[in-house]
This record gives sequence, C-alpha cells and structure tokens, in this order.
Amino acid sequence: MKALVLTGRERFELVERELAVPGEHEVAVRVAAAAICRTDAKMWHAGHRDLVMPRVLGHEVCGTIDEAPGRLFAVWPGSACGSCSMCRSGRENLCPQMKITGFHRDGGFAGQLVAPRSSLVEVPKGVGASLATLAEPLACAIHGVKQSSVRRADRVLIYGAGTLGILLAMAAINRGASVAMADPDVEKFARSEAFRSRYAIETDKPDAQGRFDIIFNATASADTLASGIRRLEPGGRFCLFSGLGSEPESSASIFSELHYRELELVGSYGCTRPDMRDALRLLARYGQDLGFLIERTIRLDEAPSVMETVLAGTGFRQVIEFK
Amino acid sequence: MKALVLTGRERFELVERELAVPGEHEVAVRVAAAAICRTDAKMWHAGHRDLVMPRVLGHEVCGTIDEAPGRLFAVWPGSACGSCSMCRSGRENLCPQMKITGFHRDGGFAGQLVAPRSSLVEVPKGVGASLATLAEPLACAIHGVKQSSVRRADRVLIYGAGTLGILLAMAAINRGASVAMADPDVEKFARSEAFRSRYAIETDKPDAQGRFDIIFNATASADTLASGIRRLEPGGRFCLFSGLGSEPESSASIFSELHYRELELVGSYGCTRPDMRDALRLLARYGQDLGFLIERTIRLDEAPSVMETVLAGTGFRQVIEFK
Repeated sequence: MKALVLTGRERFELVERELAVPGEHEVAVRVAAAAICRTDAKMWHAGHRDLVMPRVLGHEVCGTIDEAPGRLFAVWPGSACGSCSMCRSGRENLCPQMKITGFHRDGGFAGQLVAPRSSLVEVPKGVGASLATLAEPLACAIHGVKQSSVRRADRVLIYGAGTLGILLAMAAINRGASVAMADPDVEKFARSEAFRSRYAIETDKPDAQGRFDIIFNATASADTLASGIRRLEPGGRFCLFSGLGSEPESSASIFSELHYRELELVGSYGCTRPDMRDALRLLARYGQDLGFLIERTIRLDEAPSVMETVLAGTGFRQVIEFK
Repeated sequence: MKALVLTGRERFELVERELAVPGEHEVAVRVAAAAICRTDAKMWHAGHRDLVMPRVLGHEVCGTIDEAPGRLFAVWPGSACGSCSMCRSGRENLCPQMKITGFHRDGGFAGQLVAPRSSLVEVPKGVGASLATLAEPLACAIHGVKQSSVRRADRVLIYGAGTLGILLAMAAINRGASVAMADPDVEKFARSEAFRSRYAIETDKPDAQGRFDIIFNATASADTLASGIRRLEPGGRFCLFSGLGSEPESSASIFSELHYRELELVGSYGCTRPDMRDALRLLARYGQDLGFLIERTIRLDEAPSVMETVLAGTGFRQVIEFK
C-alpha cells in the first residue's frame, strides 16, 4: 500500500509498504477518506506532545473492512486500556495508557491502517466517506459541549469560525442553545454565512455588551480568554476547547474574575466512542448543511503540497480520498 | 449604642450612636457576638472592592430580636434582590444588586444592626453565640464544597489550615470525602492537630506524589494554584476559594494542563441562605470539635488592638462578645 510518512519537521516521504499485521482485537481498515486537520499541519510544522516520529498522520478517518462488505466505518482515534478509573468512569479520552491513531500509532494518510476492532463506529447510510471524516472533529465538539453542560436556551459564544467553531455551533444548537460567533478573519467568516443564517447564529462584535452563559475558544488566540471571561454572566463557563498559543495578558485578573463571579474554566480534549456515535447521528441529521466544510478532495500524493495552506488556517477541510 | 466605625485606612472610631430605623422587611438585631474575619483586617488595612466607608464592619454575626425572646439568630450577610435570574436560579450570592452586611451596609461591630428579616437563620439550641459566628464562614466553606461537587470517597486536598481551611475540611468530610491538608506555618498547623487526628485528615507534603480529585486554596498564595493543578487527577477540579494575592508564575502551563487533562477551575465567593442553614446544622453536629477555632473572646473596645494579629493570619477567630 501507499503510505505518507512524516519523518521529520516538514518532511513527508511517500512510500510503498506492507500493512502491519493486525493483533488480537485489531482489524485492517481500507481507508476511504482521511481529512487533514490543522493539528496535522502543526505536527508537520513543529511536532506535538503526543507525536512519535516516524509516523503516518491522519486521525479523521473512515474506511471499510473485508469482513463487512458495503459498510463504512469511522475510526475513533483513541485506544484506551478499558480498566483504569478514567475508562471505568466513561472518561476514556483521559486514559493514561491512551494511544492515539495518527499520533502514537499510524493513521489514515495511507491505503490501510490497523485499528482496535472496538474503535470502529458504523457510518449511517446516506453519509458519504468525505463527510464521515467530520465524525471525529464533530465528536470533539460534542465532547466540549457536554463538558460545558450546554443546555436548552443557554446563550453560547464561539470564538473562531473554522471547522471546529462551526461544529461546536452545530452541537450547541442541537442542544437548544442560541449561538453567537466571532472571527477576525472577515473573508473566512463570510464563507459560513449561509450556514449561520440558516441556524440564526448571531455575529458577535468585539465591543458588544451582551453576556453569555458559556463561551468556547475554537482558536488558539490567548486574548479570547481574557475577553471571554469578561463577557460571561456570573456563574458562567469558559471552555478551553483549543489550547492557548501563548500566555494571556494579566492572568491575575482572569483568576480574580473566576473567584468573585464564580466562573468556571473547563478543559476539553479529544472525544470518546459515545461522542463518535453521537457525531455520526448528527451527521445523518445535519450533514447536508455541513457539506461546505469539505472544501476540496485530493489524492494522497497531493497532501504534502496543501500542508502550508492547512497550517494557515484560512480554509475548511481538505480531504484525501482513496478510490 | 456603641459602634466601632472604620473611617479610613487603619482608622477605627468607637462612637455612641442611634441605630438606623429598620425599613420595611427589616429588623433590629441586638448583636450577641461578632467574629473578626481576616477579610475585616484586610479591609481595615487596605480597603476592599465591595467596601464603602465610613462603615461598621462585621459579617460573621449572631444576635437576638425583641419579638422572639430567648432565641438566637445568625445573620446571612447578603441582601439580594430576589427577582433577577441569579436569585431565581438559587445563586443569590451572585445577585448584581447584592448588598453585603459589613461591606455595603453596617455590620456587627456594634451593639445592634439592622438586617433584612429574611436574612435571619435560627441557631439550634446548644450552639452558643461565639460558636454561632462560625455559621457564615462555614456556610462559605459548604458553598465551595457544593460548587466543586465534592462527593463520597473523593480525595480532597486543602491548602491552608486556618479557620476556613478547617471548615472546608469539615464540610468535605461531612460529604464523605477523604481529606489531606497542607500549611507551611508549622506552629499554626500544630494547633489543629487534635482536630485533624480525630477526622483522619492526612498531612500533605510539598514533594508528595499522590493525586487528588478536588483541591481548594484556603490561602491567597498564588503558587498553590500552579502546584495544585499538577496534583490533580485528570478531570479533577481546583476551587478558587480564596482570591489569589498575586499573579501565578507560568499561567500558560496552567491553561495548558486545564485543556489537555480536562481539569476545571471553579470560583467560589460567599454563600447563600440555604448554605447558612446547612452550616448551622453542621455546627449542631460537629460544634464540640470546632470550639478550638474560637481562640479568644474580647470586648468591642479591644477590637482595634487585635487587627494586626488578625491580619498576620497566624491564629484562629477572635470574637467580640456583647453581654
């Protein structure tokens, strides 16, 4: 099979190689589509705390297995121990033994990959392979929405209208929240206008006065934390959905606001298998409105040439399709 | 009546004056006892964001009312509007109209005070006036424990073994948690040894390796936040119970840990009337083991002379008693 291997910083090698032999409880997945996430581009550019090289990237993947012809499966990219206190309490994404496909083990930028059998989640009929690659990022968005306990009629603000920002909006709207979004990139923001209009998503301005119950950062910009904390109702929650790229100014005032106004700062990282199943149900329901997030489909050998673009973060998903 | 009025920084005046006339829904309370909280000493020394001078301090107060002879009441120091979204959702301590006794309105460092009738909570028989002044700080501790969702068998660490640290331990133990405490002040720490031993509270060391589900800071020391975040289990919670005195080092690493390990940082400030009722029930149950927190009872005119000691934070409560 063909595999695109990251061997060093900004160094991909397209190689022909044998698929690893699936172990017990594992299965070989023929990759149908693998999306290129901005995290992939960051790993290509600068590494990542969970990345071990050389590595085949790709954690937003779907494919088929020989034993179930005609059925499509999304791959939950986690591989948890199943027996620790985190796994037993349903927080398998925090399992200390976690091995992530595309980070610790080879992912979907290849004709096939080996995955734990239990990590496959069937894609509903009517959801195509490219769209099904959104299952993993949508599951992460659903996970953030659960972590932040978004409820009916909550006012939610999302910083960043990239793929994850849009998917967070979808997940919050599905829970009955009313959503506002902000993104300083005017050109990019315009590209989600039809979607935002359809779901009555308001546009938030930096100098707006309204307050929110829950705020998400779907951007690494550290100043969204300080701005967001000020925009929360007393008792509100800020979800650290993206990691912060840098230190925010005056963290002392952030901690003071948290104390006096009883705010909560809640971390969210990755997703669980139940989140993946929820995501696939949502893709079946809302998929037609999310198609714009698949900006372009490419061949595996074209992937290296789009990494700079993906890293710039100005567009939506580029998806590698295997025919 | 005699009243001790704070007229400026480190300036008390002991004056004879008339009690304000109680308005509708208000009542005159003859003060039986008023404890001096470290916050009082900080306000005396440097002001406070919620303090308007000249002011009679004192927010840990109990007393009697003429219409109910022989009964003792603790005073919930809040005065909320009752109709805003915070009040309606049971978060009256976050009411934007909040007026706090001893901050916005005159408190218990005087023979009498005027309080909203609805703010009085009856003290159970057997709990004396001095001990009943612990109702308010214990209510704040109970509030923090509720905010942080402490549950049976949770492992809880408390930084600071002053009055509030001890009361947090009591509130967490009452919920079935197992508690560890740490305080760098060896001499002060020794004074709670009997209490800690009775409730099997472990002593935490700065270089210990164990992990906790929930951590409280009952000290303003900013480095407890960075240390505490590292000691949390994945998915754990840090309660900002005290405000931080200064900016913590490397807040970027704090936010990064929050994101990747799905930690929560939860603010807690003040308490509600239901918290006061819970606190008085706990005082009836555990009061005999908490008596050591009443370090000394003094007369009103002695209060100015102990403010430096209270500010130093090396002891437990000094309580003004009115005979």
